[in-house]
Amino acid sequence: MSIHPTAIVSNKAIVGANVKIGAYTIIYDNVEIAENTVIEAFCEIGVSNHLSGGEILYIGSNSHIRSHSIFYEGSVFLESLVTGHRVTVREKIKAGKNLQIGTLSDLQGHCEIGDYVRFHSNVHIGQKSKIGNYVWIFPYVVLTNDPHPPSDTLLGVTVKDFAVIATMSVILPGAIISRGCLVGAHSSIKGITEEDMIYAGSPAKKICSTAKIKLHDKSGSAYPWRKHFHRGYPEELVKQWMSEL
Amino acid sequence: MSIHPTAIVSNKAIVGANVKIGAYTIIYDNVEIAENTVIEAFCEIGVSNHLSGGEILYIGSNSHIRSHSIFYEGSVFLESLVTGHRVTVREKIKAGKNLQIGTLSDLQGHCEIGDYVRFHSNVHIGQKSKIGNYVWIFPYVVLTNDPHPPSDTLLGVTVKDFAVIATMSVILPGAIISRGCLVGAHSSIKGITEEDMIYAGSPAKKICSTAKIKLHDKSGSAYPWRKHFHRGYPEELVKQWMSEL
Amino acid sequence: MSIHPTAIVSNKAIVGANVKIGAYTIIYDNVEIAENTVIEAFCEIGVSNHLSGGEILYIGSNSHIRSHSIFYEGSVFLESLVTGHRVTVREKIKAGKNLQIGTLSDLQGHCEIGDYVRFHSNVHIGQKSKIGNYVWIFPYVVLTNDPHPPSDTLLGVTVKDFAVIATMSVILPGAIISRGCLVGAHSSIKGITEEDMIYAGSPAKKICSTAKIKLHDKSGSAYPWRKHFHRGYPEELVKQWMSEL
Repeated sequence: MSIHPTAIVSNKAIVGANVKIGAYTIIYDNVEIAENTVIEAFCEIGVSNHLSGGEILYIGSNSHIRSHSIFYEGSVFLESLVTGHRVTVREKIKAGKNLQIGTLSDLQGHCEIGDYVRFHSNVHIGQKSKIGNYVWIFPYVVLTNDPHPPSDTLLGVTVKDFAVIATMSVILPGAIISRGCLVGAHSSIKGITEEDMIYAGSPAKKICSTAKIKLHDKSGSAYPWRKHFHRGYPEELVKQWMSEL
Repeated sequence: MSIHPTAIVSNKAIVGANVKIGAYTIIYDNVEIAENTVIEAFCEIGVSNHLSGGEILYIGSNSHIRSHSIFYEGSVFLESLVTGHRVTVREKIKAGKNLQIGTLSDLQGHCEIGDYVRFHSNVHIGQKSKIGNYVWIFPYVVLTNDPHPPSDTLLGVTVKDFAVIATMSVILPGAIISRGCLVGAHSSIKGITEEDMIYAGSPAKKICSTAKIKLHDKSGSAYPWRKHFHRGYPEELVKQWMSEL
Repeated sequence: MSIHPTAIVSNKAIVGANVKIGAYTIIYDNVEIAENTVIEAFCEIGVSNHLSGGEILYIGSNSHIRSHSIFYEGSVFLESLVTGHRVTVREKIKAGKNLQIGTLSDLQGHCEIGDYVRFHSNVHIGQKSKIGNYVWIFPYVVLTNDPHPPSDTLLGVTVKDFAVIATMSVILPGAIISRGCLVGAHSSIKGITEEDMIYAGSPAKKICSTAKIKLHDKSGSAYPWRKHFHRGYPEELVKQWMSEL
């Protein structure tokens, strides 16, 4: 364990073996940080909130939280969470393993996230979102939830396994982005999409099957992306993806 | 008064009774913070700027500024200001009471804001904006001001009482969003709008009266929103709203 | 030299004459900061990264980095860099002089930037971007790079001298924004543009010559902007611009 002398760590916090805590970082009471995790400088971990129901913040082992990040109490992140800088992560999130949260992303809490999900920079995840496994969400995408703002009606967005949402798209309340779909950049989309199709425009229209997009070097189809893009995924998983028809 | 031992507070700053100042926060000289206000950790309050004309920053009573926020000198916020994290608030803002500024929002200064205004996360308010009372602005909305960038011509946006601007819309220079209007998500809009109408698209078109939008549970009309949405408003005000025809 | 007592400055860092370093700021090992530069509070300068190849971060003389900013090692910024607050600047950037980077902007590294470039607030510059001289990029613009995300193919965007990209536009992978072009607000654009033309819409279309846009006060043409907008440029340069046909 290595705690910078300027860090302020509650003696109620549970801090695992070999955890590293950076300069000026504050760890509050209601927190468990599992072994081998790095928390960089200027973070606040376990901010208290009346909406958290007093539940702890759990950060799984081998995680890496970059500087200036803020996590509230009352969420669970399994092993190997990685964040960029200045992420804001609220209460009541239940996230799987190997989640990546890019710089400046803002997770509003009260949502579910699967395994191996990637949020690039500056992604906004509204409350009540349900995100599957192996999902990619690119910069400046917003997942909304209020069908007639302002109101107390929250219709979260669902994003299913292997779906990809490109830069600066708005996913409207209650939309379901189906397995393997691609939402093109600068789109707005509502309703239920069909699997493995491309949607683009504002309002978005169905364009064609994702299989029609060729790789830039013409060496084959660009989708499903799991057939050619494997960075950061475990060998076993890649083997399984490659053996699918 | 409760000042964290790591906070750096100028002895020229005026700090009211029962104010709480968090760890590592810096309060500069030219600041008045009224009673019962909370300033969380890692903030900078009263940043000096040659554009502020040497005027103080005034933060009204019962306010709550969340961590990592930056306020310049030369602005006035009446009672019960509430901010999210990492807001950036520049000089020469004159704001009413009960303003809410969401996480990551960026107020460029030189603007007027009424009472009970809500900015959600990541809202950008350009200089020369004039915002009325009870306005709602949702994530990633930008209020622009330069009709032919770059230039020294600043035509601020006007947003009138009860108007709502949905996620990721751009309000073009000099636009007037009239009382009770709804600008749909992912729109860009210019010119003068009619009261209580919906505008959507890029470029935005007039769609219909807001009264035509039904609540999700079909229990009535979703607009004017003040007829059904009352969270955070005082009883007296709600009573008045409900008694209007 | 003026280093705040709470700043943490590596004794391996090279810090020039008359440099000022603010409260709680961290300067890492692999950094050179030239004379007369100001680094404000809560910054991290020279964050180590395996992608930087061990190269230093060089910040030129007379620069001003505002608070809560993060710079990685392995980039070079010539004299008179100015930033807003909470900018995030990654490795392998080669930037000219008098660069301005607005609050919340996120430079992903591995890119080239000319002289006198202005990024307004919340600009996202993807890897492999090539930006010329005297370019203006306005809030919430994203320069992308992946033609079929996610993938390892990076086709950076090129933005040539005097080009202007207005608020909340997405520049698609491999696009070339030619000299003097104006991309209108809330546009998405791909391919190669013609010089001194306006493009707008999503997908963007060629509208007309920029010369057709009049100044708001009808005193002449608004473009090329260098004929009337001179704030922050040296006299010699302005003289040259005014003498061009």
